[in-house]
Amino acid sequence: MILTVTLNLALDVTYDVEALTPHTTHRIRTVRHRAGGKGVNVARVLHTLGQETVATGLCGGPTGELITRELTDASVPHDLVPIAGDTRRVVTVTDADATVFAEPGPAVTPDEWEHFQARFAARAAHARVVVLSGSLPRGLPPDAYAVLTRLAHRAGAKVLLDSGGPALREGSAARPDLIKPNAAELKEAALDPRALPLVVSRGPDGMLAGTPAGCWEALPPEILRGNPTGAGDAAAAALALALRDDTPWPSALADAVALSASAVVTPVAGEVDLATYHRLKQHVTVREIPCPW
Amino acid sequence: MILTVTLNLALDVTYDVEALTPHTTHRIRTVRHRAGGKGVNVARVLHTLGQETVATGLCGGPTGELITRELTDASVPHDLVPIAGDTRRVVTVTDADATVFAEPGPAVTPDEWEHFQARFAARAAHARVVVLSGSLPRGLPPDAYAVLTRLAHRAGAKVLLDSGGPALREGSAARPDLIKPNAAELKEAALDPRALPLVVSRGPDGMLAGTPAGCWEALPPEILRGNPTGAGDAAAAALALALRDDTPWPSALADAVALSASAVVTPVAGEVDLATYHRLKQHVTVREIPCPW
Repeated sequence: MILTVTLNLALDVTYDVEALTPHTTHRIRTVRHRAGGKGVNVARVLHTLGQETVATGLCGGPTGELITRELTDASVPHDLVPIAGDTRRVVTVTDADATVFAEPGPAVTPDEWEHFQARFAARAAHARVVVLSGSLPRGLPPDAYAVLTRLAHRAGAKVLLDSGGPALREGSAARPDLIKPNAAELKEAALDPRALPLVVSRGPDGMLAGTPAGCWEALPPEILRGNPTGAGDAAAAALALALRDDTPWPSALADAVALSASAVVTPVAGEVDLATYHRLKQHVTVREIPCPW
Repeated sequence: MILTVTLNLALDVTYDVEALTPHTTHRIRTVRHRAGGKGVNVARVLHTLGQETVATGLCGGPTGELITRELTDASVPHDLVPIAGDTRRVVTVTDADATVFAEPGPAVTPDEWEHFQARFAARAAHARVVVLSGSLPRGLPPDAYAVLTRLAHRAGAKVLLDSGGPALREGSAARPDLIKPNAAELKEAALDPRALPLVVSRGPDGMLAGTPAGCWEALPPEILRGNPTGAGDAAAAALALALRDDTPWPSALADAVALSASAVVTPVAGEVDLATYHRLKQHVTVREIPCPW
């Protein structure tokens, strides 16, 4: 089982409008609600692939109820840990493009964080891989991902850490099995792939893996147009499967590029087009390169 | 006791931003939640004036819970009747001005409407005035306000109807004791003040009362700048008190103009500035005029 963790869950709310005109009133015809957050997207993709997964995270209040209800309706296995605060919403108003209003979300209390760690450790004992995704909510220590990485390792699970900023840097100290920094953080070179395998997305230019065993780059056979939101989470799903199965790096990277591209052609984060995935994955070009660091 | 009815309740959500820029992401620092809807505003104003009031309406789901919680926190007496659907939100993004995204809200089922009528009739038996405010949610018949007016009259309560469109026209058929059409509806002249007393707001130009006993206009002593949202609901609160106390029309109208103006100077609908109210109400000019119809 692959356990995905989303500490900063959100309810994604979408309002479709003809045109967003500031300082007017827009009557929304239909409101779409969807559980959001990077780890939730990873779990959705794994579930679509028919792989065993459980989504956990921190979730509370009336908005938390909507998230739980939506995951249940979508049959995504989940075990969200309750907090007192009301989970945040991210409202996206879409016309030709997306305008986003992201709420800050509630602060997590020390007791709630303790409680989460206990539930997480119990779940991790049944997981072969744990995926830690996204930003940290207010109230959590910056080393929260290091704490969870140690608990996962103690429980015998491998760890993929997909975050940024201090959460990534402090989390890396506990030596997760793979990290997914963004390109800017890679350039800062505080991350050493000789010590810590990493995969970096270069958007339409594919992905780069840096590992103690060598460096590879993978290029998609074609550039797909669409919605890149969620493409990184699809890549994380592929990489989690590769960690679970001890897949060699070149083919892990090919899979991640193909699954990521198959997310770009769907309109919604957390969805992948399986036909595109199966078509592309035979044709991803992977080549070993001199490590750029 | 004055019973206010809001069938189409909403949770008013406010996001303050520096500037709303379409097709970008806005990180919201604080989210403000407030129970919204015209009848709720009337109840807030009555409560601020120290008058006995109860707010009723239809309210459901996780958003309904937030509404109930907020009214409880604000000590506004309420008796909201549950529905299965999740109550709508009205999201207002404020920079220099307001940009509004109004959700459609859930449809009310026939059973829920039956249940509401029974609860309403029981509450109306303890009310001296019932205020019916705002639009009708989906699923209710257009004569919903006529149904409630008859139930209120049977229970011995007077009725103030403050709505528009078909809800006002069909509701008027049951002869509420006072209606508050808007200026456009008055011009259509489908409403006959000889049969049905009415009060029309003319914004900063005060108010007009048309009654079987004559017509009056009332002018505020000064033009106040501010937020006119909720001014009409403050006027409805004053008029409900006048109905309760059999206040003569000229002084009822003076009170409504002063209370309405005292709502303009506050930033939030449902709030009034009592100092402004007491200062203005001595100086409102009321004069009898030839009825304009």
